[in-house]
Amino acid sequence: MLHAVIPAGGSGTRLWPLSRAGNPKFLHPLTGTAQTLLQATVSRLAEVSPPADTLVVTGVAHAASVARQLPDLPETNIIVEPSPRDSCAAIGLAASIIARRDPQAIMGSFAADHLVQDQASLTEVLKQAITGAERGLLMAVGIKPTHPETGYGYLECGPVIGGPVRTVVRFKEKPSPEVAEEYLASGRYLWNASMFVWRVDVFLAELRRQQPSIYGGLAAIAASWGEPEQEDVLAEIWPTLTKISVDYAVMEGAAEVGLVATVPGDFGWTDVGDFHTLGDVLAADADGNVLVGDDKADVVLTGTRDCVIVPQSGRLVAALGMTDTVIVDTPDALLVCPRGRAQEVKKIVDSLKDRGDNRV
Amino acid sequence: MLHAVIPAGGSGTRLWPLSRAGNPKFLHPLTGTAQTLLQATVSRLAEVSPPADTLVVTGVAHAASVARQLPDLPETNIIVEPSPRDSCAAIGLAASIIARRDPQAIMGSFAADHLVQDQASLTEVLKQAITGAERGLLMAVGIKPTHPETGYGYLECGPVIGGPVRTVVRFKEKPSPEVAEEYLASGRYLWNASMFVWRVDVFLAELRRQQPSIYGGLAAIAASWGEPEQEDVLAEIWPTLTKISVDYAVMEGAAEVGLVATVPGDFGWTDVGDFHTLGDVLAADADGNVLVGDDKADVVLTGTRDCVIVPQSGRLVAALGMTDTVIVDTPDALLVCPRGRAQEVKKIVDSLKDRGDNRV
Repeated sequence: MLHAVIPAGGSGTRLWPLSRAGNPKFLHPLTGTAQTLLQATVSRLAEVSPPADTLVVTGVAHAASVARQLPDLPETNIIVEPSPRDSCAAIGLAASIIARRDPQAIMGSFAADHLVQDQASLTEVLKQAITGAERGLLMAVGIKPTHPETGYGYLECGPVIGGPVRTVVRFKEKPSPEVAEEYLASGRYLWNASMFVWRVDVFLAELRRQQPSIYGGLAAIAASWGEPEQEDVLAEIWPTLTKISVDYAVMEGAAEVGLVATVPGDFGWTDVGDFHTLGDVLAADADGNVLVGDDKADVVLTGTRDCVIVPQSGRLVAALGMTDTVIVDTPDALLVCPRGRAQEVKKIVDSLKDRGDNRV
Repeated sequence: MLHAVIPAGGSGTRLWPLSRAGNPKFLHPLTGTAQTLLQATVSRLAEVSPPADTLVVTGVAHAASVARQLPDLPETNIIVEPSPRDSCAAIGLAASIIARRDPQAIMGSFAADHLVQDQASLTEVLKQAITGAERGLLMAVGIKPTHPETGYGYLECGPVIGGPVRTVVRFKEKPSPEVAEEYLASGRYLWNASMFVWRVDVFLAELRRQQPSIYGGLAAIAASWGEPEQEDVLAEIWPTLTKISVDYAVMEGAAEVGLVATVPGDFGWTDVGDFHTLGDVLAADADGNVLVGDDKADVVLTGTRDCVIVPQSGRLVAALGMTDTVIVDTPDALLVCPRGRAQEVKKIVDSLKDRGDNRV
């Protein structure tokens, strides 16, 4: 039904010390099961995109891990970027490669490190998005806001096109708390989950119109794909591609000319931004504690409630009388912080970087 | 001036996971310096008892560690109990051995795992206690209470004998909070720090009167001490000695017959009972955080106040936004708890024992 493309990059610094530059978020089992976020992403898309049609675009540092975590993906579907050039280059390369196989293919782009609770509902939304994409629209799956979140971008919706499909008139940056309240009250705004569905020919035409140099570079790379000169062409052209997100590079401009539409989704989506958020979406025990990962046997909790505990070192983790606290235990670093301050974990990563510590 | 005897036993379960049955409290550097509690105890007594006159009584599991931590002690001053028989047997054996060297020697008994902040004041109090002991009294150093502590036993004081020396009319068990308040208000009660000074002949006479079988056993062992039959005699008799503390076995009965006196001490004493107490006596940084041990470089604190942090695993310990919390990081176990509940850590140890976990 579609070709799923999963850009797998980014380190997730708010999930330190679990997530590191060398061992990022999407490679970790933050799903409440033994599956990693990446594996869960591929699994939940299998109904609309079997492994043979699923592509992962990742960096040189994680290619081997991705290949081993996804044994069902054909090797040619694991696309390794020589260097990070942001999402426009990554998604554009995947679109160009898919277009060579099938010029009118439907493609979807999905983050590697998000969680979805209601898979059936997601599938239904994606089917509606595919219908919109077939008509020539660039579809952005929007998430119905549940609270005035200031950590996400928003989609401003326009008129209904048909069924649940509405036009997107504008992409909005992360808002202030007051503006986020207005967005929520108006009912016209959706969270932008950077989840897109389009026909590759429509997307590439917009890329050509708005970003001709990126388009040209990707076209040259795609022409060499699978040929003997592939590596040389990639090595020559890739570093010259502009670093820009696909939202800025293509979607905002496409919305201005009326090419973008959305299907509102309500399927328990989260971007797993920090340990507090993670604790809210995973199943808790009777005391409200969420244990993340495989080492659950080695946790002793006494009089402890509503904590998020990530035992990943094989050591015994004992908490007594703690409430609303994050405890992340890894082989070389430990983090303790209140859940309400989990978003600030990046500060610790910054201070480690400042002192040249390599445990980031 | 005296022969210091240091019974070095007990595991300190409220200091888990640092303190273990196999690696007890007194072997750890909980002093704010690189010294262990045992080393600090020997050091602070050196003015009244040089190493040649200092004896440590310890168990088979810790003999090697004690010997290495105290290289200045003669090997014959490290007395190894075949099995733990409580403090009456341990202290009685030391008294019997000292009496063979010098029948009227003054001996002092001191816990291996307490802290003292004002060493000069301790020395002054001990000199007064020695004066009392020379007169034939069993001297208990009492600690002037600073708060209505329910975790210690108390000495009930009677008339002044001379100078600061007062009779002790009764030993009191750990009181209820109401009773502890009464004790504090009356001014007649001191904390019992189990710190005793006496002439060995006076102590052994009381032991003989109150505990004839223990006395007889220890006399037989002492008679063999240093002789070829020492090990056989010890192996035969030691397991038969009654397990009882010296407070119950000798001091309470001696107080009844007017043989016990005390010198009130005020030298910043603590029994280092739990991590909260430890945090109160060691030096804190500008934010009120106390870092215990040698790995201080590997701690990153952001917006964190009044915590007690024990980094002993070599790993990075990061705390963000934490207040009044204990974090103890050891190679195979981690503990997180509020300072106010540090006394309950024993619960965790109990639950580990219940499930047969060997990390206790």
